[in-house]
Amino acid sequence: MNSWGDERIQLGHGGGGRMTGRLIRDLILPYLDRGHLRILPDAALLTDLQGHLAYTTDSFVVSPIFFPGGDIGSLAVHGTCNDLACGGARPRFLSLGLILEEGLPLNDLQTIIQSIAAAAEKAEVEVVTGDTKVVPKGSADKIFINTSGIGVVEALPAPSMERIEPGDHILLSGPVGNHGLAVMLSRAEFSFDFNLVSDSASIWPVVQRLVALGPALKFLRDPTRGGLAATLTEMASASGLGVRVHESAIPLDTSVVAASEILGIDPLQAANEGKVVAVIDGEKSQEALNLLRDCDLALGATIIGEFIPDRPKMVVMRTRIGGERIVPEPSGELLPRIC
Amino acid sequence: MNSWGDERIQLGHGGGGRMTGRLIRDLILPYLDRGHLRILPDAALLTDLQGHLAYTTDSFVVSPIFFPGGDIGSLAVHGTCNDLACGGARPRFLSLGLILEEGLPLNDLQTIIQSIAAAAEKAEVEVVTGDTKVVPKGSADKIFINTSGIGVVEALPAPSMERIEPGDHILLSGPVGNHGLAVMLSRAEFSFDFNLVSDSASIWPVVQRLVALGPALKFLRDPTRGGLAATLTEMASASGLGVRVHESAIPLDTSVVAASEILGIDPLQAANEGKVVAVIDGEKSQEALNLLRDCDLALGATIIGEFIPDRPKMVVMRTRIGGERIVPEPSGELLPRIC
Repeated sequence: MNSWGDERIQLGHGGGGRMTGRLIRDLILPYLDRGHLRILPDAALLTDLQGHLAYTTDSFVVSPIFFPGGDIGSLAVHGTCNDLACGGARPRFLSLGLILEEGLPLNDLQTIIQSIAAAAEKAEVEVVTGDTKVVPKGSADKIFINTSGIGVVEALPAPSMERIEPGDHILLSGPVGNHGLAVMLSRAEFSFDFNLVSDSASIWPVVQRLVALGPALKFLRDPTRGGLAATLTEMASASGLGVRVHESAIPLDTSVVAASEILGIDPLQAANEGKVVAVIDGEKSQEALNLLRDCDLALGATIIGEFIPDRPKMVVMRTRIGGERIVPEPSGELLPRIC
Repeated sequence: MNSWGDERIQLGHGGGGRMTGRLIRDLILPYLDRGHLRILPDAALLTDLQGHLAYTTDSFVVSPIFFPGGDIGSLAVHGTCNDLACGGARPRFLSLGLILEEGLPLNDLQTIIQSIAAAAEKAEVEVVTGDTKVVPKGSADKIFINTSGIGVVEALPAPSMERIEPGDHILLSGPVGNHGLAVMLSRAEFSFDFNLVSDSASIWPVVQRLVALGPALKFLRDPTRGGLAATLTEMASASGLGVRVHESAIPLDTSVVAASEILGIDPLQAANEGKVVAVIDGEKSQEALNLLRDCDLALGATIIGEFIPDRPKMVVMRTRIGGERIVPEPSGELLPRIC
């Protein structure tokens, strides 16, 4: 399917001259151009944005660059779409910054660009501006991608940490840990298969349904680096409230449980890129679950806990056997280059 | 002045947990936060943007990361501001994506962040959203920076390659080659000093004055990678017209001429980040120069050539001795990692 044979990225592909032009024209634009990219302006002109905008950026350094369920390209699109969605915004436009290592096979780059195009089309976003740099062999690891994004805020009032109150419920859109463990497993050399794939996806369709809750939708976060544990501890710390979660309520696929035991990784600390944590007025949380009933991306959505006035800034987990333990903030050292 | 002693970036600084939080809170926010960054939302909320927007992205991989006249941080701010300015837009908001190599001294990072803050303040832009990733030692080269930016278009009609016509003049805002040669010189080990500093700066003040020309301002481009030669050949190729430039009219500092002869680099192919090429209705080019008379960033602004109906897609240079030569598109292999 790919058409570049043995060709590899050379330093000249990043020099801004003829080779750069050919790379962009022949390998990138055929997949990504929807009108804005064709003339390669210094900046894209956006004429139809109305209302409040959300703006975000994310760099992706995941290793390996191809993993079950996705690759660095689809992950970059989803990651930025999801940051916008967590701002209550419909993702609209993306920028794409590529840092390529000399020697990267052009066929690999083509696969990644195709994957970006497919993910962007599915997420209904358009890549409107981009940049390509090349560094010498050994100065990067194959490919790093930065995507920034602009979305139009549809959740009003805008979701904000400051709106969280005691009694609010914490909704999780589905099982966690799949992305992080799929990537970790694809790094290791295992002799058996857990059948684990990344959950990478754009979660705007989930958020879009929750927007119907109006002011009862208080806050949104996608539990990426540091996983659900980092999201919970961050919400407790920033809101100044306590968070109580119920271990038995947190959905985990059996393959995630099995892989996490073998790898010695807490699945609550493993990154996700297709799930969302929503904070919802406690009286409206059942309505929220009803709104998600027909949403493929929210299979397994459930209420996992609530904000409480005591235990300020702490996350307390009710364990399966009826005890309590404190969920600590992940230190961040366990899972490098997971996104 | 810097406060981090011997501390260096560790993998845990990129994990999204406690160490990431501390790095961002203690080393980044004190310099960059102007309100949007403090609560570290997934996406920044922009509520006061009206009109047509320009949107761009650029990754910076310059080596060395510190050079006379700037560093990778100030360069990243200027580069993105200048792409917006070339879209006829006043730069307003930036995103900042950092990819850090394990082992980077925190004092170096602090210097770069301070430099970003100073450049952003001078350019009157605000960093509103960011991301920090860490890769293992040997998987990157110290630090790579991606900045994307949003600006509000003030040049109406928007500058566009398609508006260029035969008879239009080509204005250059000042001497070229300084940035590229300053960076190349700082890589080499020379026993004497050319006193060459990068021209890195935000060129919006130049563009802002040219906006007063109205429709007579046809097109803008900042001659970065591939230098003035790449900008000229690109304009010829994309407009389908010929470009005639006058060698004697192209301003070059004597230090640039001297350094380019020693390094064997054509100064017209060396990158700039503080100059702009403007295409202006031939009858208004003197008015354009008058508008720039009081502008510090446009000292040495001059008309270097014009678009011609014959010689389609070619750049013809009238040499000092009265001959003609064709300016080829730079291949891009000569000057890696210049921005």
